[in-house]
Amino acid sequence: MCRPQRTASCSTPGGSARGSRCRLQPTESGTRTHARLREWHSGAVSDLIFLDSAGSSIPPAPVVDEVIGHLRRETEIGGYRAAAERREDLEAGYGVLAELFGCRPDEVAFTDSATRSWLTVFDAVPLTEGDRILVTEVEYGGNAVPMLRRVEETGATIEVMPSDRHGQLDVDALDLDERVKLISLVHVPTNGGLINPVNEVTAKAREVGALVLLDACQSTGQIDLRDHDYDMLVCTGRKWLRGPRGTGALVVRNEVRKRLWPRLMDHDGAAWTAPDRYEPRDDARVFELWEFNVADRLGLIAAAKYALDKGLDVIEKEVADRAKRLREGLKAIPGITVQDLGVRQSGIVTFTSDRVPAMELKDRLWAEKVAVTVSQRGSTLIDMTRRGLDEVVRASPHYFVTPEEIDQALERISRSG
Amino acid sequence: MCRPQRTASCSTPGGSARGSRCRLQPTESGTRTHARLREWHSGAVSDLIFLDSAGSSIPPAPVVDEVIGHLRRETEIGGYRAAAERREDLEAGYGVLAELFGCRPDEVAFTDSATRSWLTVFDAVPLTEGDRILVTEVEYGGNAVPMLRRVEETGATIEVMPSDRHGQLDVDALDLDERVKLISLVHVPTNGGLINPVNEVTAKAREVGALVLLDACQSTGQIDLRDHDYDMLVCTGRKWLRGPRGTGALVVRNEVRKRLWPRLMDHDGAAWTAPDRYEPRDDARVFELWEFNVADRLGLIAAAKYALDKGLDVIEKEVADRAKRLREGLKAIPGITVQDLGVRQSGIVTFTSDRVPAMELKDRLWAEKVAVTVSQRGSTLIDMTRRGLDEVVRASPHYFVTPEEIDQALERISRSG
Repeated sequence: MCRPQRTASCSTPGGSARGSRCRLQPTESGTRTHARLREWHSGAVSDLIFLDSAGSSIPPAPVVDEVIGHLRRETEIGGYRAAAERREDLEAGYGVLAELFGCRPDEVAFTDSATRSWLTVFDAVPLTEGDRILVTEVEYGGNAVPMLRRVEETGATIEVMPSDRHGQLDVDALDLDERVKLISLVHVPTNGGLINPVNEVTAKAREVGALVLLDACQSTGQIDLRDHDYDMLVCTGRKWLRGPRGTGALVVRNEVRKRLWPRLMDHDGAAWTAPDRYEPRDDARVFELWEFNVADRLGLIAAAKYALDKGLDVIEKEVADRAKRLREGLKAIPGITVQDLGVRQSGIVTFTSDRVPAMELKDRLWAEKVAVTVSQRGSTLIDMTRRGLDEVVRASPHYFVTPEEIDQALERISRSG
Repeated sequence: MCRPQRTASCSTPGGSARGSRCRLQPTESGTRTHARLREWHSGAVSDLIFLDSAGSSIPPAPVVDEVIGHLRRETEIGGYRAAAERREDLEAGYGVLAELFGCRPDEVAFTDSATRSWLTVFDAVPLTEGDRILVTEVEYGGNAVPMLRRVEETGATIEVMPSDRHGQLDVDALDLDERVKLISLVHVPTNGGLINPVNEVTAKAREVGALVLLDACQSTGQIDLRDHDYDMLVCTGRKWLRGPRGTGALVVRNEVRKRLWPRLMDHDGAAWTAPDRYEPRDDARVFELWEFNVADRLGLIAAAKYALDKGLDVIEKEVADRAKRLREGLKAIPGITVQDLGVRQSGIVTFTSDRVPAMELKDRLWAEKVAVTVSQRGSTLIDMTRRGLDEVVRASPHYFVTPEEIDQALERISRSG
């Protein structure tokens, strides 16, 4: 159902531009040349060592082609007709995301961000006075604020689940009872390197009927989530999945959906059947709105296909390898302290320098063509306060960063930090 | 603060590509040649007579260039750095929209759709049992569903305000008291041609302390709204404003904001200041989320600048002229019935044929290169039920459609309908 792309201007060396088959085939990373690497960067010439896939990654050429191709098509025949031409591809997108998450297509909803996904589904969890919400120590600011807001309204309480000596959620210390209505489980925190356990938490939650909302914002696209168990999952497109900004998704298990009460449906989530009657949809799309950016959604679907084609297991292994190489190298640099926790660790590597404040170090590294960001206390307030950290430099290499580039980055960090 | 555009591939005949100055200067519409018209269509070659600006319009070249230019920049340096480069332009965008609406920059919030804007602000209006919500007969499905949902939750009631003999809201018949908390005022309905009065309604609402939520989804970009009085306004980018899909905005008057209780803030709308404390922003951005598609927002800002540069009064007059020409022409075609109401009429022209069902007529017209849509009962259920209509053909010519093209469209409608 792939429509030929309309844009001839977006060069895709070595590949035609049709749907999922038009991507560039990655070669073994170790042997990848710089020219090859540039292909990953959508044909853009770049000598940047890009270590910010935890922020907003570099989309591969098929994603960019898909988005720009559709935008151009919209200028030819208008947005509605252009969307109608891609109806089958948009519909197939639910299946693509289902494949990515190991869920059913009718358990998938598209949104415009992970935050939107999180807010939408959190808002649908019934809560009342005395109900308990449990969060990890690495809870994200974007989740914490709406929880605090809702607690104000409902009289529910928020409790922080303890971490074990490695910094990850301590499953053995979980204190659950039937008043626990929701566990907000951040899978991979925005900084700090750890990967929280999932299936063990969900198994325990099931015993008391608590719902597990998995924040997979930082794990989707770097970790194979197909064997993960949860009730609801939220993700973004722009990070490890290498999709466009302004895209996200939501997975709500069918058996769980019946326990939720979506508040903010439009006439797409529910049909307006009589002046005083409406009928909600019987699938996860009850959480969607009718209007969305079609080009961006097509880009997200292309990004998911791209990841599936590369292989989720391959990606997971390659990201872990790059992060490990970076982490080990950083540990060997005098004056640099790696600030990562956890037993199993993610593609997010955080560190501080004894000599240079994080913001300045980030700027120095950008000047040296190493793309990193700084993560501040407000993102993971509980964890960073507990650890006495104000800000850390965050480096998040994806598989398209070569081991040689990691070594070059280490050398520049050594010089700058 | 305009960064040079990165894309050389999007041709902009006769203009360089820098910020608000890079647009094409429109000439007088009557003398515009087809070649000139094509420039409006972002350089795309098109012989389509485009009568669907009420659906999703054709963005002008500077909008498309802005969006695609930023997408390409993101592939070079990542989404975060690319956004940082445009921080001043993004900030200036609040001022641009303020100019468009005649409000203050701190009364503007960007969203991803008019529906999102509407849901966000509607959800923030405090409602309790016995409160009255008033709606027009032309209430939109996307607003009606969440209202019905909320009535279920709160015990508020929804009442339909009567229309006058012209079909527009009957201001004299307004039955207001202090229990009226919200008037949901659809300015220009999605079909039916009318423009509802605004200032008279708001004046009456003020007497009883009711809030007026103006749905300007179909008026923003075709009607100069600067002298309109309301408490809250929602709009979309993709229709008459000629912005990208997946964009919208919200205006909330400062004095009104204090009466609202936004439910779903993230850590951008409110700072997470301590594990159990958060501090909401003191402007309309309390309604925004941190993550958004930066390219699309830049496109929306470019579209608003483009409209301001053309002149909101000029646009309003030209759209009204085109619609009048089309409406008058349709009335002269045997078997065609114009289904428009109202004293003052909008750029949305709706009609039916005695011989051909709306859907089939739409398809025939597309085959004849006339882009129209069909509007169905569920969009404006109360109004269409009352009028005994199931579906109508909708034609919505923007200023870039020439009078000659209107005449050609009429000829083809006459042949097809």
